[in-house]
Amino acid sequence: MTRRVQFHETDLAGLVHFSVFFRYMEEAEHALWRAAGLSIHPPETEVGWPRRSTGFEFYRALRFEDEFEVCIRVAAMDASTIRYRCLISRGEERIANGDLTITCVLKRPNEPMKAIPIPAAVAARFRPASGEEA
Amino acid sequence: MTRRVQFHETDLAGLVHFSVFFRYMEEAEHALWRAAGLSIHPPETEVGWPRRSTGFEFYRALRFEDEFEVCIRVAAMDASTIRYRCLISRGEERIANGDLTITCVLKRPNEPMKAIPIPAAVAARFRPASGEEA
Amino acid sequence: MTRRVQFHETDLAGLVHFSVFFRYMEEAEHALWRAAGLSIHPPETEVGWPRRSTGFEFYRALRFEDEFEVCIRVAAMDASTIRYRCLISRGEERIANGDLTITCVLKRPNEPMKAIPIPAAVAARFRPASGEEA
Amino acid sequence: MTRRVQFHETDLAGLVHFSVFFRYMEEAEHALWRAAGLSIHPPETEVGWPRRSTGFEFYRALRFEDEFEVCIRVAAMDASTIRYRCLISRGEERIANGDLTITCVLKRPNEPMKAIPIPAAVAARFRPASGEEA
Repeated sequence: MTRRVQFHETDLAGLVHFSVFFRYMEEAEHALWRAAGLSIHPPETEVGWPRRSTGFEFYRALRFEDEFEVCIRVAAMDASTIRYRCLISRGEERIANGDLTITCVLKRPNEPMKAIPIPAAVAARFRPASGEEA
Repeated sequence: MTRRVQFHETDLAGLVHFSVFFRYMEEAEHALWRAAGLSIHPPETEVGWPRRSTGFEFYRALRFEDEFEVCIRVAAMDASTIRYRCLISRGEERIANGDLTITCVLKRPNEPMKAIPIPAAVAARFRPASGEEA
Repeated sequence: MTRRVQFHETDLAGLVHFSVFFRYMEEAEHALWRAAGLSIHPPETEVGWPRRSTGFEFYRALRFEDEFEVCIRVAAMDASTIRYRCLISRGEERIANGDLTITCVLKRPNEPMKAIPIPAAVAARFRPASGEEA
Repeated sequence: MTRRVQFHETDLAGLVHFSVFFRYMEEAEHALWRAAGLSIHPPETEVGWPRRSTGFEFYRALRFEDEFEVCIRVAAMDASTIRYRCLISRGEERIANGDLTITCVLKRPNEPMKAIPIPAAVAARFRPASGEEA
């Protein structure tokens, strides 16, 4: 996914605010799902994907109107969990490395969310995809 | 409502990004509802309040860690619409004036949203409140 | 400018938050400048473009993963002010109409911002462009 | 720091968007600095505090109008680096744990940022504070 820094993503230090990197990573995640023919949140779904843990290491800053690339791949998958690795780069420069772990849950009104196995249609698209990048 | 500018609300020009003023106005709107004993979005509700039109005039800028006040009041109300006026100020200085018009709708799965009369319990709290400020 | 709704741009009503429309309009504004060979905020500049007034009328909602178009054009220009008109649409449907007025200022450390004439290089790119869209 | 979830911080899953937790952590960081008589970004400063790494573990979700607490403390400090630990809770419930590492740098126009020792005035306020919470 190629993306350009927008003005509203910068802060008064002149750089992209660090919380915005998590939005870039998630935008690439959803683009990866779309590339696999899926939506992570189709209308009326009872299946959700809450985030369990996430982090970023920052090596360089991004500035207004920079063009950069966000590369995300499935690093691991078990019964109900997907773990992504993400690289943000600008040309040859590594900007940041991120990771993100999500869990598949059932969401019903007036019930607590409950972890469930990843639907087969989803697992089938991502299991062989572990070496693939968006 | 008194509020302090947060770092993530600034942009690289060193000022609060203009889109954030609409979030300040809405935060004050919801605080006004809470002060009236209401929530604008209780769990499981079928009643929604989409925004119909909104605008701001900006007179001065806000900067990181400024403290400022957001004052919102109901300026007009008819069968299904509420119109607010909002003033953002820092001490004696006028920073910006905003307005916001919302419509009461019924939201049901697989049906288009439909305008409905403002529920009596809501209208009763805001009609006499038209001279009051949060 | 064609854009897709991102997950972080939605709110719990399932729609794009109204403050995000102002970000879409500004992204299109900056794309219009880039298409004219300009940046609205080049590094080390002393010239700024604070927003003076802005507003939106909303006709329909945008939802997660919708694709939509943002069309912005210069509607008026005088010595130090540019006024844009903006249309957001999804296919044949009109979603929202916005307007945005910005003023050209000189920004120097420890001095108040002062309105100045629009630089000739900028005015020349936008004056004939008043019928053009991004 | 006590804080209430704002509408614009939720997403269409009805929960606070995970990127917003990093903003809560940073708001508490800056409140900790103010409580120590400092600002992390005073006007005209040449000293900056870019974020080097950060992460969150999420245990429970936050919803619209929830009140919650953000507790941040200095977990470690060396010559040019500060590491915080952060706990977000709602009453007795643990919502999320975060960490954040920042580096002190000198920022000059047209020079790359360079790591420098933490200014003595800052180190003096935080070194004894390592057991203290905001």
